[in-house]
Parts: sequence; structure tokens; C-alpha cells
Amino acid sequence: MTLSASSPVGIFDSGIGGLTVVKAIQALLPSERIIYFGDTARVPYGSKSQVTIRKYAQDDTGILMKYQPKLIIVACNTVSALALDVVKRAGHGIPVLGVLEAGAELAVENSRNNQVGVIGTRATVLSNAYPLAMNALNPEVEVFSAACPLFVPLAEEGFIDHPAAEMIAREYLLPLLDHGIDTLVLGCTHYPILRKMIAEIAGQEVRIIDSAEAVALKSKEMLAGNGMLNGSQCHVFPHLLVSDLPQKFKSLCELFLGKDIPDVELIEV
Amino acid sequence: MTLSASSPVGIFDSGIGGLTVVKAIQALLPSERIIYFGDTARVPYGSKSQVTIRKYAQDDTGILMKYQPKLIIVACNTVSALALDVVKRAGHGIPVLGVLEAGAELAVENSRNNQVGVIGTRATVLSNAYPLAMNALNPEVEVFSAACPLFVPLAEEGFIDHPAAEMIAREYLLPLLDHGIDTLVLGCTHYPILRKMIAEIAGQEVRIIDSAEAVALKSKEMLAGNGMLNGSQCHVFPHLLVSDLPQKFKSLCELFLGKDIPDVELIEV
Repeated sequence: MTLSASSPVGIFDSGIGGLTVVKAIQALLPSERIIYFGDTARVPYGSKSQVTIRKYAQDDTGILMKYQPKLIIVACNTVSALALDVVKRAGHGIPVLGVLEAGAELAVENSRNNQVGVIGTRATVLSNAYPLAMNALNPEVEVFSAACPLFVPLAEEGFIDHPAAEMIAREYLLPLLDHGIDTLVLGCTHYPILRKMIAEIAGQEVRIIDSAEAVALKSKEMLAGNGMLNGSQCHVFPHLLVSDLPQKFKSLCELFLGKDIPDVELIEV
Repeated sequence: MTLSASSPVGIFDSGIGGLTVVKAIQALLPSERIIYFGDTARVPYGSKSQVTIRKYAQDDTGILMKYQPKLIIVACNTVSALALDVVKRAGHGIPVLGVLEAGAELAVENSRNNQVGVIGTRATVLSNAYPLAMNALNPEVEVFSAACPLFVPLAEEGFIDHPAAEMIAREYLLPLLDHGIDTLVLGCTHYPILRKMIAEIAGQEVRIIDSAEAVALKSKEMLAGNGMLNGSQCHVFPHLLVSDLPQKFKSLCELFLGKDIPDVELIEV
């Protein structure tokens, strides 16, 4: 397999939450070809076991490998937390970036008081992967985590500024804020959809770290370092693959990408 | 394959929501052996496409068939709505009962003003299966449906009497109540967990129909009619099979069955 600067950037996620990463990559690296796989037939991963998540991560990487990507971005926090080694092994030497590491790094760089909050799915929080990643970079950082399992359904149902969603968000976030955090990591790719509400509850003192933006920055850095940035200036639509096409796919796609949906191909897992 | 009165009753669901059916069968038919399969690795079905749901229904039936059941109960409203024919074909002549038909029948029998409400997942509501089933029994019945996609996550997260859940429930239910319904079908096996809250919002004038209880009644009727009721009075724990064991399985099991968890076996799909 010969990789070149014109090879695509491969991105996968358990569903379509990773489209927030697609959007961030498009914004920062508009010339890159993107191939995205969303495992919509088996979504969500966040409430499943580690064994199952690792099996799915292997399948997902295999699907992207057929497109010979120059970089694989794991847009799923759950897979980043529990199965990044599986992806690296299945990627046969292709660079792999996980949203989790990117978000953890940016949070550590930005916190002034070393009190960092992380919100994510139950599986991500139970994995303890964000605290481990941040403490590997700076042992002084204290990390406070909260699982927010209702945020994904609330985001997908468009309860973005609904008073019931705000009530639930306050319950999830107040214990973290009580610890005096100055940085809050959105450790799930769906959460940027609720960013405005989360930021309002967190207040201006708290810097919000979006793992999708963080991994886009990290991707640019890595591709530039390898001489693999795509030089040609053609803007190309991302190529979207999904394992199922649910009724709500179209409306969700718009919620994430904020515009018309590019080509979508249905594949079997 | 020789079936006898001592053969088990097979029940399957997309996840563990169907344990409400297990509970209802245990209450009504305490001598029956129950074999239950919950497809926890691929849950939820309600937001997926018909093609995918039909494929999963075929797999699920195949798993139960290994245990030579005398009756297959489809505890999943989504499968009952979109793939009951698949189950019947894969069941090779074994009687098949779906929660949907049972709930529809009981609702039609009970309504005095022929104004019936149905709540369920988006897939169940979009399938139009409840109105079709009720109108086949009585063309005069007017059916008003509402998808309540946040009810499953709210139930699973234990937001059973939370003010945010109540706010969301009111939004879902008020349009149905405005139509003057006197009967409301809980068209999703998770919803009985929220029954108290739903009943309070609906008011005393509205009779709540729980499809799980309805299918248990129907099962008793059918087994008695076939001479297949189990005569021996031994009480046996249900045998539970799941395709994944998520972290929250234990607590969810208690939420549904309200007591200690019986044997649970992990199988691959």
C-alpha cells in the first residue's frame, strides 16, 4: 500500500456523532479528502462491554483500510478510551489519532488551575482514560468526571435549549463546577451540539474543550510533520459510509454538518 | 422437533426491555419455563431501518429455536410491527405472538369511546402497525400515535419521577389527551417502568394498556387452547441469554424484574 498526500483521511465513529470531527477537519483542512464510516447499525457503543467495543473497533478499522487512508482518526471517545490499541494494530502502521488523546492534551495545555472536568458516556468515564491521559502529561492535573448518558438522546432529539434538557444538564454539571474546574472537556462527539447550553451553565470562567476541534488541530500538525498535507486546493465532499440508514439519518446529518448531506453509501458489517 | 407442554416459552427483545414480558408471564403462568434472548449488543432496534430490523429478527428467532420452544413471544414492539412475518417463517410453524397484536386487541376491547392513544418508538409509530391492527379488529376506532424517543433513555437512567422526565412526558402526551382518548397503549416494553408517571399525566379517565400484560393473557389463552400449559408446579427461574453484558445490565435487570437476576448467559450474534 503506497500512501501519498492525496490519500484520504479516514474517520470512524459508532454512529454519526463523529460528523463533528468531519466538520472540524473540513474547517481546518479544506483540501483533504475524507472517508467517514459511522456504524449506525450497532450504535451506540457507549453502553456496551469492552469486549464488544473492541470487536466493533476492529471491524470499523478494516472498513476504512480498504480506502488506504494516510491517517485514521478515531472519532469515537468510547473506542479511543477502550480500543485504540486494536485500531493501531488493525491499521498496520498507519498513524492513528483518537479524539480522547487530542482532547486530553488540549485541556492540560489550557488549564490554569489544573482542575479539569470531563463529561462523556458511561463507558468512557468508567474507563478512566481521560484522567490517565491527562495525568501522563501532567501529574498535577486533578480530573473530575461525570457520565451524562442522557446527553446523546437529548442532542439527537433536538432538545438543545429545552428547559428539561437544561434541568438535566445542571444535575450532571454542578458537581463538577463545585470542584472549581476552569476547563471542561466535551468527551463525546455528540456533546458539541449541546455546547451553547453547557457553556451557559458552566459560565464564562470555564473554558470548553471540544475534542473534535482538538483532534483536527492535532491532525493538521501530524500531517504537516509527515509532509502529507494535501497540496491541491480542490474542495471535495466527504464520502460517508454507514452500516444502516435510519429514518432520522437525514435530519441528524443536518444537525451535525449544518448543511446538505454529501454522498452516503450503505455497507454491511 | 417434538414439542410438549414442558417445552419452554421463548421470548426475545432488542435488549432487556422485554423483561417486562418475562415478569408478566411469570405472574400469570408461574409454572412455565422461560427462555429469554435480549440482543444487548445491537440494542436499540427502534431507531434502525426496516431491513436491519428484519435481519436481526431472523437472527433472534434462530437463537430461540435452538431451545425448541412451544411458543415464541416477540417482546419487541419494533419487531412485532416490522418483522413478525420473518419470525413466523423462521419459527417453522411454532405459534408466534407479538406484543403489538396483543396490546392492540386489548385496547380495542377496552375502549368505550373508540378514541385510543398509542405511544412507542419512532420506528413503531412510523410503521403505523398499531392503527392497522386496531382497525382490522374495529374500523371505528380512531388511533392517535406519538413517538416518545426519550422515554427509553429516561427509563433506563432511572428518571422515573424526575421533574425533567415529567416535563418531557407532558409534551409527548398532551396532544394525545387533547383528542379525548380513553385508552392509552404503552407500545414499547420499556414504558411500563414509567407507568406511574404516565398514568398521573393521563388522569384517571384514561385506561393504560400494558402490552406486556396483554401478551401474557394472550399466551395463557393460546397455550390452554393447544393443551400446552405446563402442568407441573415447579417454579423455575427464567434462563436469560444476552448478546452483550453492559456495565449497567445488573441494575437494569433489577429495574425490570424487581428482584435478583436469574442465570445470564452471554452468546454471540
